[in-house]
Amino acid sequence: MPSGYDGRVLQTLDMHGAGVGDRVAIDSDIRYTGTIMPRYHHSDDSHIVLKLDSGYNVGVSILGITGIRILERRPAPPPSTPPPEPRGDLPDILLVSTGGTIASRIDYRTGAVTPALDAAQLGESMPELYGMANIRPLQLLSEYSENITPEHWLEMAHTIHEEHSKYAGIILAHGTDTMHYTAAYLSFALAGCDTPIVLTGSQRSSDRASSDAALNLAGAVSAIIQGIPRGVYIAMHHTQSDDTISIHHGTRARKSHASARGAFRTINGEPAYMVSGGVLERHSHKDYWNGIAYSPAISVDRRAALVKYHPGYDTALLDHMSECRAVILEGTGLGHVGREAYHTIQSMVRRGIFVGMTTQCIEGSVRMTVYESGRDLLDIGVVPLRMVPETALVKAMWAASRDTDIHDAMVSDMASEMA
Amino acid sequence: MPSGYDGRVLQTLDMHGAGVGDRVAIDSDIRYTGTIMPRYHHSDDSHIVLKLDSGYNVGVSILGITGIRILERRPAPPPSTPPPEPRGDLPDILLVSTGGTIASRIDYRTGAVTPALDAAQLGESMPELYGMANIRPLQLLSEYSENITPEHWLEMAHTIHEEHSKYAGIILAHGTDTMHYTAAYLSFALAGCDTPIVLTGSQRSSDRASSDAALNLAGAVSAIIQGIPRGVYIAMHHTQSDDTISIHHGTRARKSHASARGAFRTINGEPAYMVSGGVLERHSHKDYWNGIAYSPAISVDRRAALVKYHPGYDTALLDHMSECRAVILEGTGLGHVGREAYHTIQSMVRRGIFVGMTTQCIEGSVRMTVYESGRDLLDIGVVPLRMVPETALVKAMWAASRDTDIHDAMVSDMASEMA
Repeated sequence: MPSGYDGRVLQTLDMHGAGVGDRVAIDSDIRYTGTIMPRYHHSDDSHIVLKLDSGYNVGVSILGITGIRILERRPAPPPSTPPPEPRGDLPDILLVSTGGTIASRIDYRTGAVTPALDAAQLGESMPELYGMANIRPLQLLSEYSENITPEHWLEMAHTIHEEHSKYAGIILAHGTDTMHYTAAYLSFALAGCDTPIVLTGSQRSSDRASSDAALNLAGAVSAIIQGIPRGVYIAMHHTQSDDTISIHHGTRARKSHASARGAFRTINGEPAYMVSGGVLERHSHKDYWNGIAYSPAISVDRRAALVKYHPGYDTALLDHMSECRAVILEGTGLGHVGREAYHTIQSMVRRGIFVGMTTQCIEGSVRMTVYESGRDLLDIGVVPLRMVPETALVKAMWAASRDTDIHDAMVSDMASEMA
Repeated sequence: MPSGYDGRVLQTLDMHGAGVGDRVAIDSDIRYTGTIMPRYHHSDDSHIVLKLDSGYNVGVSILGITGIRILERRPAPPPSTPPPEPRGDLPDILLVSTGGTIASRIDYRTGAVTPALDAAQLGESMPELYGMANIRPLQLLSEYSENITPEHWLEMAHTIHEEHSKYAGIILAHGTDTMHYTAAYLSFALAGCDTPIVLTGSQRSSDRASSDAALNLAGAVSAIIQGIPRGVYIAMHHTQSDDTISIHHGTRARKSHASARGAFRTINGEPAYMVSGGVLERHSHKDYWNGIAYSPAISVDRRAALVKYHPGYDTALLDHMSECRAVILEGTGLGHVGREAYHTIQSMVRRGIFVGMTTQCIEGSVRMTVYESGRDLLDIGVVPLRMVPETALVKAMWAASRDTDIHDAMVSDMASEMA
């Protein structure tokens, strides 16, 4: 494995027989105990990067080091054991791995910096899951979710479309950063799919004592084997506590905390279900696709943009969106932008670009008839959208790729996106 | 007052002797009771717009109308009475009105659709305030806050700078949509100002029974007369309940609900103070400007942009920001964007544009050393900013207008913006 170290630091490591992935005690001004990580590209060339037991990294200058003691050698990769034979009395679940922190156990342990745990290893790392269901692992991608693109959404949708009829449910292990965008996409592209689709991930990698990976995955499995109805869901910790997993509607959740375990929240409402002490409890669930029969529509058009409005917004930027089929404004309050922007927005509408309005307030919805600004924007042709901005953007990218009228698609509730 | 009505609708109104601002009962399929509002520009020409007692508007088709009965004539504007003589035993407070819902009582009552209540009327409408302090009204602007621009920020800052030494505190009545942007601006431009500055507004106009205007204003007055230390604050309902007014640090609050009264929230923490039962209670307050002596720096440069990253983001849009001095990214999770955007961001940094990273997660902060993506972006020269995106944008607009290095300004905590 490339360690990124060279020169004096590599010499120091070699001198002590230590390498990336080893758990060590380094004596310097104080004693540091942790796992040697690869060097960051941006760090200087005189520090060893150590992941402390707290999970965070420090750089230890080689200048003050008086000794390095190996506490534990970098573990050999666990032998890959085939999953147990399927049992006839257990439901079948497909576990599709796309990457993300949930799939980064080996990554953290050995110091590699890309997601490295495949779906089979993910299943193996949580053997208790095999007592609950026949889990078939399928490795699709290995990406942190900030690198997930609309084209990846298509891959996921095609895979689920091809496989879904064989399973009681599909679990998608996914990075949390953009999990809600993917969940929204699958909700529109696979509308009416009879097999429940549950996205799950983790905020702490599986090798950390505080990891939420196993419980989130177990929550997703529990939801499926206890008969959650069709729909696209996000299963993640409800709070910091391990007691409860929230099962959010996939079109209404947002990643609402950058680091906490209870990172996802249903906006403008309660989660659809909770798994509490292993038991699936219904909360605000309604029929996700409101009677729609399955008719996959797997396509996407990137020509949609999301614009967060702010005082001093340079409206010339909107002129550069003339290739867009749709622009989603994230306006202020009940759905406003300053009158400085009216002229440009009007010309976009006249050119046939769909312009939809959402709110940058976290909770609440647009209501554009209350104030003059909203009424002016309605007048211009801006369309109020009662859904979170992220879902509106994804829906616009999907609608723009279909034969249907974008406006018609955007204003009808397809996948419980309208609170 | 222009009513916006013409043709058949105007004839119908004239026939019944009714006009905009009158409270009426209209008999049609059912009986509608409410106040006649001016016609929306976008509404068709066969409806009367009626504001129901619930506060919301309906259009009543003239085709089915069997009668219109006047319940109450549009009230004459209240006579403007001069404020009471200042009392030597009361502190002096300057009430600067800039517009917004808090200043829209006359607006709603008579149907006018721009903020119409000036600072004197605002004071008059809440006579109990005059028992608490000598309130000097000053009418500066009459804008809903979606129309507030950086140039308006300058006007507000200059006014406060000129007046502050004469008062125990300054209250700014302001629309809620962009109140937090203005609060952030004043925090940087007026750093160290010895007179506390409290922004307040309302989510319901003063003529509605559920209005929060008077209590928010009283909360602001209470905070000042009970000696809140220097700083820029936002005083708004803590929840839906009238018991408690939260006093947020002006650089750390966001409008977090589009319509609820408890709309503002301190991100990543507690409000600085609360006013509960009229009593000012300290919560998370620390010295707002951390020892900075007053040195006004009232200038702004619009050449800063806020970019919310999402899957499928068209990085060509970044190329159109080459005139910017600073670009604030609202990245995913701990501060990430997809690697599709690296190349463009790198060339921005090389051209000398400051590129800062914030998170689109509501709570939590960027921490760019945890994952490969963050480290890559640090490598490229992206600067992590531990503050809410809106504050980062405003600070960048301010810093870009100063002689100092933008980077230095952005990474040092000036006005308690870093949680």
